Amino acid sequence: MTGTKNQLISMRHYTSVHDIENLDELIQEAIQLKKENSAANLGKGKTLGLLFFNSSLRTRLSTEKAGRLLGMEVLTMNVGADGWALEFEDGAVMNSDKAEHIKEAAAVLSQYCDVIGVRAFPGLKDKAKDEEEQVITAFTKFASVPVVNLESSTGHPLQALTDAISITELKKKDKLKVVLSWAPHPKALPQSVPNSFAEMMQKMDVEFCVANPEGYDLSDRVLDDTKVYHDQDEALKDADFVYVKNWSSYEKYGEVLSTDSNWTFSKEKLALTNDAKVMHCLPVRRNVVIADEVLDSENSAVIHQANNRTYAAQAVLKRILEQLD
Amino acid sequence: MTGTKNQLISMRHYTSVHDIENLDELIQEAIQLKKENSAANLGKGKTLGLLFFNSSLRTRLSTEKAGRLLGMEVLTMNVGADGWALEFEDGAVMNSDKAEHIKEAAAVLSQYCDVIGVRAFPGLKDKAKDEEEQVITAFTKFASVPVVNLESSTGHPLQALTDAISITELKKKDKLKVVLSWAPHPKALPQSVPNSFAEMMQKMDVEFCVANPEGYDLSDRVLDDTKVYHDQDEALKDADFVYVKNWSSYEKYGEVLSTDSNWTFSKEKLALTNDAKVMHCLPVRRNVVIADEVLDSENSAVIHQANNRTYAAQAVLKRILEQLD
Amino acid sequence: MTGTKNQLISMRHYTSVHDIENLDELIQEAIQLKKENSAANLGKGKTLGLLFFNSSLRTRLSTEKAGRLLGMEVLTMNVGADGWALEFEDGAVMNSDKAEHIKEAAAVLSQYCDVIGVRAFPGLKDKAKDEEEQVITAFTKFASVPVVNLESSTGHPLQALTDAISITELKKKDKLKVVLSWAPHPKALPQSVPNSFAEMMQKMDVEFCVANPEGYDLSDRVLDDTKVYHDQDEALKDADFVYVKNWSSYEKYGEVLSTDSNWTFSKEKLALTNDAKVMHCLPVRRNVVIADEVLDSENSAVIHQANNRTYAAQAVLKRILEQLD
Repeated sequence: MTGTKNQLISMRHYTSVHDIENLDELIQEAIQLKKENSAANLGKGKTLGLLFFNSSLRTRLSTEKAGRLLGMEVLTMNVGADGWALEFEDGAVMNSDKAEHIKEAAAVLSQYCDVIGVRAFPGLKDKAKDEEEQVITAFTKFASVPVVNLESSTGHPLQALTDAISITELKKKDKLKVVLSWAPHPKALPQSVPNSFAEMMQKMDVEFCVANPEGYDLSDRVLDDTKVYHDQDEALKDADFVYVKNWSSYEKYGEVLSTDSNWTFSKEKLALTNDAKVMHCLPVRRNVVIADEVLDSENSAVIHQANNRTYAAQAVLKRILEQLD
Repeated sequence: MTGTKNQLISMRHYTSVHDIENLDELIQEAIQLKKENSAANLGKGKTLGLLFFNSSLRTRLSTEKAGRLLGMEVLTMNVGADGWALEFEDGAVMNSDKAEHIKEAAAVLSQYCDVIGVRAFPGLKDKAKDEEEQVITAFTKFASVPVVNLESSTGHPLQALTDAISITELKKKDKLKVVLSWAPHPKALPQSVPNSFAEMMQKMDVEFCVANPEGYDLSDRVLDDTKVYHDQDEALKDADFVYVKNWSSYEKYGEVLSTDSNWTFSKEKLALTNDAKVMHCLPVRRNVVIADEVLDSENSAVIHQANNRTYAAQAVLKRILEQLD
Repeated sequence: MTGTKNQLISMRHYTSVHDIENLDELIQEAIQLKKENSAANLGKGKTLGLLFFNSSLRTRLSTEKAGRLLGMEVLTMNVGADGWALEFEDGAVMNSDKAEHIKEAAAVLSQYCDVIGVRAFPGLKDKAKDEEEQVITAFTKFASVPVVNLESSTGHPLQALTDAISITELKKKDKLKVVLSWAPHPKALPQSVPNSFAEMMQKMDVEFCVANPEGYDLSDRVLDDTKVYHDQDEALKDADFVYVKNWSSYEKYGEVLSTDSNWTFSKEKLALTNDAKVMHCLPVRRNVVIADEVLDSENSAVIHQANNRTYAAQAVLKRILEQLD
């Protein structure tokens, strides 16, 4: 009872995995919504505004679909590159390239939208600045409506909820071993997906560890007491789920220290596990991050995961709508 | 009676403030729609096409929202920069960069849309060409459906209606003094917002004047017999509403003649007024156009105005829909 | 009976004119839908995803409108230029610029969308590669939902269906002569529109021929036993419908061999015909492809055609929806 109540209150915003009070309940709700859309009119007359500072395919489509499944109108805006530069500094004299302050932007969007989703990637140059989460923090501060994180500098909580739903659906036994396994990639990618996945696994009743080369340990703040292996093979032993993902170095912030193809997830790596389900948030670079032979096998859960993006977003938006007057 | 009838007829298009026959009635209708959406099915089965030759945030979102509040489908198109260059000259031999003539474009859009909204900014290089209002005029000529101005070379009548609604809601006494006060800005901006605001104020029962530096007088055609002050302090005396806005020179067409920060609207300027409400169409450059201390005070009406964009658009679209068969 | 059944089965995808089993029936259905939208709820709860690798005005708007007339939700995505490069090669090691393989992209889109429309133009450099129809073929292979061609390398079947509907509506006698007549254009254009138009005319009970300069003959595969004239005047004699259209050379693949203005469709050319209706898919370059005097005359059918784009798309989508479970 109290749990439910607390959760509704805590689901004012969904900016991080930590905004979830009762994870099991939220996962079960998403699985129910997938079976039967029992909330098709909950969002009637409400508007969902999706604000993209960076490009998006899956997040855009699945969140638009989730909003519409709830009966909401969806307004999608691509900001960023061309023109609409926002000022975030308090007291700034705006006489150069920034045309609008976040104070006005967030306040105005709050009048056209009942819920605002925001995607804003990190620059991967300045660790302290990225960790400030300037964009998402400013929106929660200056918007008068709930804010949903569509992937920020340091987290991707909708993806992590999707992953939790997928593991719950696909697991074949109670006590699971889940491994987050780093993979090579030609470009420097954010730590947002692995961060939120790690935080989510810490909330679930699973044995969780991370495997990555030296120099690629995630932030201590995220890892907490999670065990980190620098030997991938050792980590993969008996794994029931392996989440394969590249990220750039956190220590040497934003750098690509290795593209070692020994870390590519192959059939040989799969053989070390307990016939594990292999996960990835997509898009995935075939034969660099994960080998064809794995992606095209029955062990791959990546399409299943992508489908759950819709229901993760729908469950979160449902919770948020329920506590709007 | 006749007034109402005339207005419905005159509201075939909304391309300028002068298309409004009975302003009070339209303002009251917008205020009513804000309180209760009494026309949620009026636009059922009708399509609103929004055509942007220039970028837009507020206008796009508020007009999309207005259309949907009326039950319309909304199709939004970003033309401009990438590719779809329109030819406007009659008899042109189209053998270079223009792929489609406005005659076809407008006729075709008229078949997919029941109402067309168009945004097309001025070049600010050639006064005569900008004053021709080539784009909006061509659409009213070649489209077979009503056309709404989403900001053209010389006017922004949806913004001006928003401002009239906001003043009506916020006023505390009958006989008002309203001042349009120029402010500095690093870039050359159109005169469209101040033009339409001046024309709108001339239609309202208020004492209206403009304050701007020498060289920044608006067009005589717009100003008519409106008093212009080159001394801002003198103009602001006893003002109940101050609309702060930058525009580039009309005389030395499109030029930035001054960025004098003495014209920035500050607490000192506010002190000269009758505790005025301070208005701006947004986006506003803080501490260049208006100081933080004013924008963050209770005197600021800018967020209130932005909210009314939706209801101004809804009132106009409602009038237009009512006279469609 | 069997015909109808077969058609429903064959309308799993609409990637080419050859996917139509019973053309007359489909044309009549489109004409009925234009008169009365009898299928406004057929697509309720279904999502139409429109994927544009190239820009689009008419196709985008008319297909969006068609989907919504059927009650579908429509998600439109502009891929291409900025960022989301797809890999199509089987077994590729994706360590350069391609971020996602078509296998994942198509599978994921199949989970958010119930029908997928795809536009992907040819490069016009490599004939063999363009004729592979890599993009549309990959979508039909890897998507688990029906795929609609919104113009591919070698065909534009929704346009051709539109044209068949328009000819059916506008014809004044039974035995028609239809001419596809090449026209000059400053840029190299695909053969997709003339290809599909030729294939469509071959399915209709009309006398059909093509007129084009030497070097501009369409592919033998498309032409089959269609008569080709290199003398435009001879071909136009007694024509009831003339489809004017530029295309680049198929023989010297993608080249512009001629911009001869003697092939521009003028009043003099029209005088050679049987008071023909003049067709074009738009956008049309006035006074290069077709003269003002023809486009502005009652002989022009181009706006009529554009309107039918909506009902062609609606008829196709209706067939596809009917065979979804």
